[in-house]
Amino acid sequence: MQKVTLAIDIMGGDRGPHIFFSAIKRVLLDFKNLHIIVCASQQASDELMQFLPDILKSKVSTRVSAQIVDMEMRPALALRKMTQSSMRQALDLIKQGDAHGCVSCGNTGALMAMAHYVLKTLPGISRPALVSSLPTMTHNKVLLLDLGASINCDAENLLQYAVMGSVLKQSCEAIKAPKVALLNVGEEDIKGNSDIQHADALLKNAEGLNYIGYVEGDDIFAGQVDVVVTDGFTGNIALKASEGIAKLLMHEIKSTTQQNVMTLLFGKLMLPFLKKIYQRMNPDQYNGASLIGLRGIVIKSHGNATADACYYAIKKAIAEIEISVPDRIKTKIEKELLEQ
Amino acid sequence: MQKVTLAIDIMGGDRGPHIFFSAIKRVLLDFKNLHIIVCASQQASDELMQFLPDILKSKVSTRVSAQIVDMEMRPALALRKMTQSSMRQALDLIKQGDAHGCVSCGNTGALMAMAHYVLKTLPGISRPALVSSLPTMTHNKVLLLDLGASINCDAENLLQYAVMGSVLKQSCEAIKAPKVALLNVGEEDIKGNSDIQHADALLKNAEGLNYIGYVEGDDIFAGQVDVVVTDGFTGNIALKASEGIAKLLMHEIKSTTQQNVMTLLFGKLMLPFLKKIYQRMNPDQYNGASLIGLRGIVIKSHGNATADACYYAIKKAIAEIEISVPDRIKTKIEKELLEQ
Repeated sequence: MQKVTLAIDIMGGDRGPHIFFSAIKRVLLDFKNLHIIVCASQQASDELMQFLPDILKSKVSTRVSAQIVDMEMRPALALRKMTQSSMRQALDLIKQGDAHGCVSCGNTGALMAMAHYVLKTLPGISRPALVSSLPTMTHNKVLLLDLGASINCDAENLLQYAVMGSVLKQSCEAIKAPKVALLNVGEEDIKGNSDIQHADALLKNAEGLNYIGYVEGDDIFAGQVDVVVTDGFTGNIALKASEGIAKLLMHEIKSTTQQNVMTLLFGKLMLPFLKKIYQRMNPDQYNGASLIGLRGIVIKSHGNATADACYYAIKKAIAEIEISVPDRIKTKIEKELLEQ
Repeated sequence: MQKVTLAIDIMGGDRGPHIFFSAIKRVLLDFKNLHIIVCASQQASDELMQFLPDILKSKVSTRVSAQIVDMEMRPALALRKMTQSSMRQALDLIKQGDAHGCVSCGNTGALMAMAHYVLKTLPGISRPALVSSLPTMTHNKVLLLDLGASINCDAENLLQYAVMGSVLKQSCEAIKAPKVALLNVGEEDIKGNSDIQHADALLKNAEGLNYIGYVEGDDIFAGQVDVVVTDGFTGNIALKASEGIAKLLMHEIKSTTQQNVMTLLFGKLMLPFLKKIYQRMNPDQYNGASLIGLRGIVIKSHGNATADACYYAIKKAIAEIEISVPDRIKTKIEKELLEQ
């Protein structure tokens, strides 16, 4: 197994840097060839080192950061002023060849702007995309992109997203010809705006892409398609609306079982089932959205992620490093898009 | 109570016209002052009349339709060629003053195009919007619009949707100053595209509107806001993605309880809870999206609606007729948008 060096920006999340401590310990115990460079304030670095058992200390080095990117800071401002921030340091480490990839739970907009500026996009890719894996009805997972890296996007961008999503699914899950679909308001050819219809035509003509046409919002979770492509505005809202209704359902189950002693008792009996269901749907294990299309691996962990969720985000970064996702996307883009 | 005359296009749904029979019977028993004009083929009309008990027959009249709008037909073609269809007849009945409103489960695009053409929009409204009521965490319902009446829309359209949604919520649920929000990819001022930012400025300046700013996808179901405004593309996908994940969760619960005899037994014990939860979340009772902004009341029932769901769609039409929704929207638009 190759040696993997991962930069982690542990500052800037909603729960503070400590949420990463146990995740880092756990992942270091799991992956013997892993070295982590932690980008953090002096205090957080010291506390992390105190927290880690002696046996793991040599597997972690630190970069002390003079700045932290605030969750509310505008991306353009962060890009200009936050050159000494933990986020920027983590990206610079990749750029300089000192790390294979990075994880950050900070300000998404700032991370995307900085990553784009520092790492640059791959040849043939105009914009990076944020992509995540979601559960479906058939126990296959589905990749949804873009989740908000770009708000406005045209047909060419959607085609690039489709190719990138297909490569990611192919490489990470060994699916030979991932089924790719375009998110639309209907499955008929006449539906959608001109950008979508144009993208549909481009995707139909793209060689080496298993494009199956349009799907609607509910099809994301039906398990019949491997990659669902949409613009960042729609993708972000589809994802969050789904999170919202899932929370609502869980809340309903909880409040229904708390109505009286009888229902409370039944509720206790239900617990093992709910736990099983929760484990499969557990948002923690889906934490870590990949920012793909860049010359480096960047994983965005949810700002409000738990320690468990941070662990999954780090694992995702390691998995992408091990299979060299950017190289694979580069090869595919060169073959399918740039040679035509 | 005033006499209410409702036109119903019972053709064109996925399940055929019979799905409406028991819904019509039930609603006629509920509402003594209701008269229904059924627009249908000769055969469906005859079968409905045979189905109804004698006591209700006088409360139903029929218009025999020579055409049915196909689910796949392009809206423009339906508008041009389907002038003798059950859908068109139902709309014409409103236009001629013979019905107070209509319900149809047919081709959504065709219904919107025809309704727009036949009934016209209210003064100050450029486009109708499709709006539906959804469950939330706090047992308040939330109105989401537009759900797909228009694919592209600008800031002015979003402002009109906001005013219409606010009036609908105010009139149907007696909420004095409904909280209105704009759907976006973040709550900060800097988020979203230029149309959304422009709409935000317009909404902030609109008098008589309780605008609270941006909300994200998951906030739709949080119950802290009464009306969520978005363009038809995003609204449609947010709604359907939510339906998709809700279906997935229900499916998980079912399959988890069917793993072995023990889980099956527990599953039986769980049934009363699941039923309770299902009743509250039951998509049937949310059936019937209102096409608002027109000079008439048009309710779109889901193409795949059950008999129960058809009943709820008819009830929604009656409720809107009883409080004269178009008149209320007209008054508000004149006061808030046209006088400025």
